[in-house]
Amino acid sequence: MPIAEGIKNALVSASMIRKMFEEGIQLKKQHGADKVFDFSLGNPDVDPPQAFHDVLVKLANEDEKGSHGYMPNGGYPFVREALAKKVCREQNVKVDGSFVVMAAGAAGGLNAVFKTICNPGDEVIVSRPYFMEYRAYTANHGAKLIEVDTKEDFSLNLDLIKNALNEKTAAVIINSPNNPTGKIYSKSELDDLASILNEQGKKTGRLPYIVSDEPYREIAYDCEVPPVLSCYKESIVVSSYSKSLSLPGERIGFIAVNPDISDKDDLINALAYSTRILGFVNAPAFMQRIVSQLTDESIDVSIYARRRDEFIKVLNAAGIEYNNPQGAFYLFCKVPQGKNGSTDDKEFIEHLKKYLILGVPGSGFGKPKWVRFAYCVDEKIIKASLNAFIEAVKTW
Amino acid sequence: MPIAEGIKNALVSASMIRKMFEEGIQLKKQHGADKVFDFSLGNPDVDPPQAFHDVLVKLANEDEKGSHGYMPNGGYPFVREALAKKVCREQNVKVDGSFVVMAAGAAGGLNAVFKTICNPGDEVIVSRPYFMEYRAYTANHGAKLIEVDTKEDFSLNLDLIKNALNEKTAAVIINSPNNPTGKIYSKSELDDLASILNEQGKKTGRLPYIVSDEPYREIAYDCEVPPVLSCYKESIVVSSYSKSLSLPGERIGFIAVNPDISDKDDLINALAYSTRILGFVNAPAFMQRIVSQLTDESIDVSIYARRRDEFIKVLNAAGIEYNNPQGAFYLFCKVPQGKNGSTDDKEFIEHLKKYLILGVPGSGFGKPKWVRFAYCVDEKIIKASLNAFIEAVKTW
Repeated sequence: MPIAEGIKNALVSASMIRKMFEEGIQLKKQHGADKVFDFSLGNPDVDPPQAFHDVLVKLANEDEKGSHGYMPNGGYPFVREALAKKVCREQNVKVDGSFVVMAAGAAGGLNAVFKTICNPGDEVIVSRPYFMEYRAYTANHGAKLIEVDTKEDFSLNLDLIKNALNEKTAAVIINSPNNPTGKIYSKSELDDLASILNEQGKKTGRLPYIVSDEPYREIAYDCEVPPVLSCYKESIVVSSYSKSLSLPGERIGFIAVNPDISDKDDLINALAYSTRILGFVNAPAFMQRIVSQLTDESIDVSIYARRRDEFIKVLNAAGIEYNNPQGAFYLFCKVPQGKNGSTDDKEFIEHLKKYLILGVPGSGFGKPKWVRFAYCVDEKIIKASLNAFIEAVKTW
Repeated sequence: MPIAEGIKNALVSASMIRKMFEEGIQLKKQHGADKVFDFSLGNPDVDPPQAFHDVLVKLANEDEKGSHGYMPNGGYPFVREALAKKVCREQNVKVDGSFVVMAAGAAGGLNAVFKTICNPGDEVIVSRPYFMEYRAYTANHGAKLIEVDTKEDFSLNLDLIKNALNEKTAAVIINSPNNPTGKIYSKSELDDLASILNEQGKKTGRLPYIVSDEPYREIAYDCEVPPVLSCYKESIVVSSYSKSLSLPGERIGFIAVNPDISDKDDLINALAYSTRILGFVNAPAFMQRIVSQLTDESIDVSIYARRRDEFIKVLNAAGIEYNNPQGAFYLFCKVPQGKNGSTDDKEFIEHLKKYLILGVPGSGFGKPKWVRFAYCVDEKIIKASLNAFIEAVKTW
């Protein structure tokens, strides 16, 4: 019994993704990297901004004494202060550094949050389709993920969320801009969600948290992302620099809590403690220093906007229906009905592979009959995929 | 109920440590930092070697395209290969990069290991005194930490370990050089432990792992640290650059498994998967690149050796009994009997504070009546503490 049962089972589905990943590598070896239309991974190809490089070199040269040592588990106080200013601006609230805990990316932050707020057996509600890792992030801490459907346009279905609430509900996760749909939840949706939760709190005495996973906040095209912290008292934002500065490998992000959140000091101490005992100990020191000097920086979002527009042209030409993303860098598309009547997403992804197009089945986000294409790849690849898409749909 | 019950309870003891930490800061403000003899924290003050700085600056200037993006969850293949060479040399085994998984420090590595190998209800055996975070690292994944005493000289008590084994035993943790005792387990101790575990495996069909936590391997004074991977098939080493390169804030370390370990591919995949779903995703990218070029580097251990010798002079002069450490940077000391007969470690630590000496009660390591002093502080502070120690013992 060398591997835990839970992990062994999870590895089976993980190995499917790995297989897909390895097949992609194989295809690129066989046909040349520029001949494969790889829209499978959310790994930003846009370089970090020049300002990042400048700060990296500057801090490397300074290499201040003690700057790679331990700091308080919640992060350097001066970094937390710098990040708080960004949170004030983005969330339209007044917070200082004591409301911010530095995290090892949003994934690290979410694990610290769920460790902190979930008793074993608690429930966390998520709207489907969703980033499937949430399932593991909650299960890690003994909580159960409860899935509810969104509306047809991928906005929140508040009736379903309301029905799913009970005294075991620790939190509702929202992810806006959304992976995989690119949906941004409106201010009025957030306000309505807040009312439902406030009502629930009156009924049961337990106010569920809103945990807002916002790594794509900066990547919004047609509108601003409404600020959750201004809408609901028991709200926690988790974010990272993985997308906004293209630093996903560096594992740097943060948690920010509402200025009026209950038991704030206990909660912040608990978040720092969870960060410590989960083995993060603290967010990486050098990257903390770097991002504290880059709170106003972001990659050039117009690059992604252009790619979205190019990809939409391709999909239109091929006759594939899609949800027009307001943010993030994914196109979530309906599987067209095949000649044999099939709308199976895994089959369609397999079929696309024959045309050297790689994507991810919607089943991987709890939404069969849909597929996700990531457009964090060179515009040339998107344009070049036109004929492959057209042929693939013709022969499907 | 804003914080999980388990965390709320843990925060009570964590807040004691925080209180101590804050009192230390307060004392330094009040009396001046150089007047307080702070031996409480294991935060290395020795600068990283010059080679670290050089590689940091070199890689910052190069800032290769894509070098802050995602890589496979187990780490960059070229980094794993580089680390494998170090593992071969230190552990006297033949492994390539496929036997290494990069981790966010040893704490991150240990969490990934316990997530991977422990079913809920499994047991992990540890020898007391021990680094108390192991309790959380196992509890995080539903496992139970079983404490057994060491012998009087802090070597492993193999009879007690043998008695504690049962079919639920997933692993035995060893930590050598040891925090807090500085003990290094001998080759024959490791061989004997291996025989006991092999016997156990024959009896129950389940071979427990040895999980060897080795962040202090490079900090050994009078002997080499015997290689666990050469002694026992089901062995896993977890280590970091926190002490050997003085980079604890950067969260960079690794996991290495025995070349003959059972189901190696599954195990390695599971370790990478656990790294991902616990929210580490991967060890920080930039630091991975840096340490891959520094596998032969270490801070100057003679600095710690000199401090140990100086500290021992102080303790001898004050009449405090101690365990002579073979490695790490801690002196584990017996609480002298006070005038009122007390040998209480917490009381003694409180008493020392009056003389501006800060240490950690042995109870924090499962060993009351002992205290730990960390000597990863300037030699001047150690020397200057002489009179304070003498006075403190006189008035105890």
